[in-house]
Amino acid sequence: MTNPVIANRLHFEDLRLGETIALAPSTLTREMITTFAAEFDPLPFHLDEEAARQSLLGGLASSGWQTGALSLRALVDAFLSKIASAGGLGFSDLKWKAPVMVNDTISGAVTISELRRSQSHPHWGIVTLDFDIRNQKNKQVMTMRLANLVECRNPEVAA
Amino acid sequence: MTNPVIANRLHFEDLRLGETIALAPSTLTREMITTFAAEFDPLPFHLDEEAARQSLLGGLASSGWQTGALSLRALVDAFLSKIASAGGLGFSDLKWKAPVMVNDTISGAVTISELRRSQSHPHWGIVTLDFDIRNQKNKQVMTMRLANLVECRNPEVAA
Repeated sequence: MTNPVIANRLHFEDLRLGETIALAPSTLTREMITTFAAEFDPLPFHLDEEAARQSLLGGLASSGWQTGALSLRALVDAFLSKIASAGGLGFSDLKWKAPVMVNDTISGAVTISELRRSQSHPHWGIVTLDFDIRNQKNKQVMTMRLANLVECRNPEVAA
Repeated sequence: MTNPVIANRLHFEDLRLGETIALAPSTLTREMITTFAAEFDPLPFHLDEEAARQSLLGGLASSGWQTGALSLRALVDAFLSKIASAGGLGFSDLKWKAPVMVNDTISGAVTISELRRSQSHPHWGIVTLDFDIRNQKNKQVMTMRLANLVECRNPEVAA
């Protein structure tokens, strides 16, 4: 049941605990922020400069969901597109630590913090990925932990 | 320091533990799925029908981040735009329970599961919101728990 789409990619056995993946930077323009917010998070402090100035954020800031989406995209480019991923299981402990303002540049790193073979499905492993997302001043803006299913190359080898 | 943008909205004191907010339905067309995935989650099983058929998902399925974004949008329309929200703090325990396939309709409900006054900032409260997102067959596709900051009307009343 080899899946030709992912046969040549890194499999679970190729991943290493503590491995760190650098994420490419992304600059959030005003248009990116308001376009995303209009579709998914249309609150005044993501859409309107004056309302944003009067809010806790202190100025126009991206939807936290957009910060997450751009971080996910960077991880796809740097890592998920190169491994035999079967999909995400979920997230835990997402924290928005500081607002991402217009023209801020976010980047960061993702660390493999856990590698676990599935007991019930020996052809899969679960990789846990810790995001550390920062702005151009190296201030942390978001952390989160993603659990992703990855195919094993040798499912017959005991977990 | 009254913020005119949110002065007339529901404040922390108006929210009730156990209150349930119904989310409007959203149908994920093929174009919505591939457009979102091309921008934020460009993995084969979100973009290409044949690759998706060979994947664990069994067919073209939305990015889990898109399912979350649409659920957030529905919560903004039904609730967050009506309260004096100061922004999200983060979320925990996001779980993708089943894939959302082309033309599936998602909807669901959000329940206020915790209301807590901030000890350090008495003019804010923290509302915890539990999402229960289901498809048109009433199968649960996603759960998550969001923590949101809300202004108090009477900060001088002890927490």
